[in-house]
Amino acid sequence: MSHLNAEVISIGDEMTSGARLDTNAQWISRRLGELGVSVEFHTTVGDNLQDNIDVFAAAVQRADTIVCTGGLGPTQDDLTRQAMADLVGQPLELRESSLQHIESMFARRGREMPQRNRLQAMFPPSADEIVNPQGTAPGVDLAVDREGRIPSRIFALPGVPAEMKTMFDQTVAPRIAAMAGGDTVIRHHVMRFFGTGESDMEQQLGDMIARDRQPRVGITVSAATISLRITATGSSQEQCDEAIRETEAEIMRRVGHYYFGSGENFEQHHAVDQMLRSAGQSLLVIEFGFAAPLGDWFAALGETPAYRGGLSLAVTDDVIKLAEGDDWVASARTLADRFGATHVLAVDRYPSLELHDDRPLPAADVRIIVLSGEDGYQEKTVTLGGHPSIVQPRFAKAALAFLRSTLSATS
Amino acid sequence: MSHLNAEVISIGDEMTSGARLDTNAQWISRRLGELGVSVEFHTTVGDNLQDNIDVFAAAVQRADTIVCTGGLGPTQDDLTRQAMADLVGQPLELRESSLQHIESMFARRGREMPQRNRLQAMFPPSADEIVNPQGTAPGVDLAVDREGRIPSRIFALPGVPAEMKTMFDQTVAPRIAAMAGGDTVIRHHVMRFFGTGESDMEQQLGDMIARDRQPRVGITVSAATISLRITATGSSQEQCDEAIRETEAEIMRRVGHYYFGSGENFEQHHAVDQMLRSAGQSLLVIEFGFAAPLGDWFAALGETPAYRGGLSLAVTDDVIKLAEGDDWVASARTLADRFGATHVLAVDRYPSLELHDDRPLPAADVRIIVLSGEDGYQEKTVTLGGHPSIVQPRFAKAALAFLRSTLSATS
Repeated sequence: MSHLNAEVISIGDEMTSGARLDTNAQWISRRLGELGVSVEFHTTVGDNLQDNIDVFAAAVQRADTIVCTGGLGPTQDDLTRQAMADLVGQPLELRESSLQHIESMFARRGREMPQRNRLQAMFPPSADEIVNPQGTAPGVDLAVDREGRIPSRIFALPGVPAEMKTMFDQTVAPRIAAMAGGDTVIRHHVMRFFGTGESDMEQQLGDMIARDRQPRVGITVSAATISLRITATGSSQEQCDEAIRETEAEIMRRVGHYYFGSGENFEQHHAVDQMLRSAGQSLLVIEFGFAAPLGDWFAALGETPAYRGGLSLAVTDDVIKLAEGDDWVASARTLADRFGATHVLAVDRYPSLELHDDRPLPAADVRIIVLSGEDGYQEKTVTLGGHPSIVQPRFAKAALAFLRSTLSATS
Repeated sequence: MSHLNAEVISIGDEMTSGARLDTNAQWISRRLGELGVSVEFHTTVGDNLQDNIDVFAAAVQRADTIVCTGGLGPTQDDLTRQAMADLVGQPLELRESSLQHIESMFARRGREMPQRNRLQAMFPPSADEIVNPQGTAPGVDLAVDREGRIPSRIFALPGVPAEMKTMFDQTVAPRIAAMAGGDTVIRHHVMRFFGTGESDMEQQLGDMIARDRQPRVGITVSAATISLRITATGSSQEQCDEAIRETEAEIMRRVGHYYFGSGENFEQHHAVDQMLRSAGQSLLVIEFGFAAPLGDWFAALGETPAYRGGLSLAVTDDVIKLAEGDDWVASARTLADRFGATHVLAVDRYPSLELHDDRPLPAADVRIIVLSGEDGYQEKTVTLGGHPSIVQPRFAKAALAFLRSTLSATS
């Protein structure tokens, strides 16, 4: 397998002007890294034909593979196809198969294709189409010859993130894997962890996160939740899945203590929901103080018998007011009864955190309380510091981790 | 005034690899646009000296002004200073004034400066320092001669967003304004609006958002909240502020109906808090269904007599359970009484929205109810569609807009 380097190009005035934040380049760079391709440059350029041609020409010289997004729409601003054609000195020609696909996309939505969308079916003759199953803009795959080196390959995708991601995974990734001379079936599996830091995790994983390991294990952290993303390449899906299972088992041996579930968007509140449901239990959440993220997260779960409601209150006395009770714990149990909830998770209380330029980021103590049944009571105090926008969700996640530990201890 | 073009450069392996999302380039591009400078390219490059030099050399040829971030730290990975020195064929020399500033930053934190931080006081002799009031990494301002044209000016800033932003506003922006031959005092004012779309807003503002208008008016939209950012340049602060006041008044004449407050981070719940406080009123929020953003937003206000708490419940029957009442409106009034709240804002109910690849984004009806005093009742139904991650906060914002309209009608 040969080592490839890459450049990611984003096209559009809305990006160079700052009107829109480019998140595509980050996503593509991560995916390329998982394929063993080193991304060395990102370039963003506006909707100007000559600038586009110049940027492609420079990229072709320094990168074996180029993934670009944007400029494939049907309007006059959309110049990516023209720039690619000019780069290789070819005309744009209508491709019938592509036109039929575009017309069928409009037909599925019950609309007739406007004439200007014919533009999206125009390709340089030597280019391959990249099918877009979700939208009308097909992608363009063009090899550009370089003297004495392998051709540089440009993959042009639409800027719409959902379409771009599907097309990258379905078509571009296997083609890049084939360029590198390796196996072309690629499978991913994401494992999620909470309760430790990135550097601790890296240390415990040791050689598992080495760049040349197969399958590759990539680590990312988002708001204190750690994701390990396993990427296997092989000659068949079965071979990939088997390799992923072995790697997954080894990861569990080393850091399984912090694992809470699998899947890119799987969060601790999903794990809590599953645990409660399988035990026929249910939850009332009470958040005190200056945040209430858990109420929003649990509500977004959708219909589930495991979640009964959330209260966002200033102080514990408010629970007494609400239930017209005597002390807050008894009042919380009363409210849980009224909702038919078996458990209460209380966060007492999200701090008010102020930033000061010259001082370290503030830290605070927060008490997490889990009430269960008629007299179950467990509490834990968590101390965390950091930027307020990050630290409040971290307290919420620490509360979920504590709840999970009490649920698994009693199950 | 001459017209300048610009390139924004982001430096660091963590950006090219996709480990970190670059938000600096967007922020800088917006600020440059406000100064009348056209940003034509963004380039991101890893921590490789030759790549850095090449990227600077290319940028100098195509841009009059270059703002770059990253690579100014004290470690071996931090190569920006060296790349700039190599670009102009100058050595890096220790600058005493800068060293003293760095030592004083450590002293303020009660620490001695590690030797390696001396690196951060090294400059090419022809460069100017850009003072960093918040951190140890000073910025570098370097003019690079170009044959037959004005020199290209590189402003290198740290990658830490808070430090970068302060340094840009304090030092870089006035220097760029001076390069363009214009006035060098720059003042901003941000006005916030809700209740209409971007294109409708643009139409009503007409010539006010023309690129060559003074003061400039920039429009951005974030989750359905529209910001108009007025940027005035002048010879004095008073002159700028007077120009801003006139522009502000004209904006209010045209689109004042949608205005709810001023300031970059001013949201509708801040406006509600101010309205309630000034009238000695207070609020209980009840959110039904599959989201509960208002509880989190209001909690984050901090101590305020105007907000008493939030309930996140599945359905209106849950209010009856909670208050042990008969109907939900009466029960909601009972709960408001227990909290001493004069008003209830209820959102009935955030929908469960599922995405389907082949269908238009889903729309839903949500009922907004405002209860006030003993029998005040007002309701409104809002229909919105769009991606679930965006549409739930939009329902919440529509609820706040309705609450504001009822509060101003009764005040």
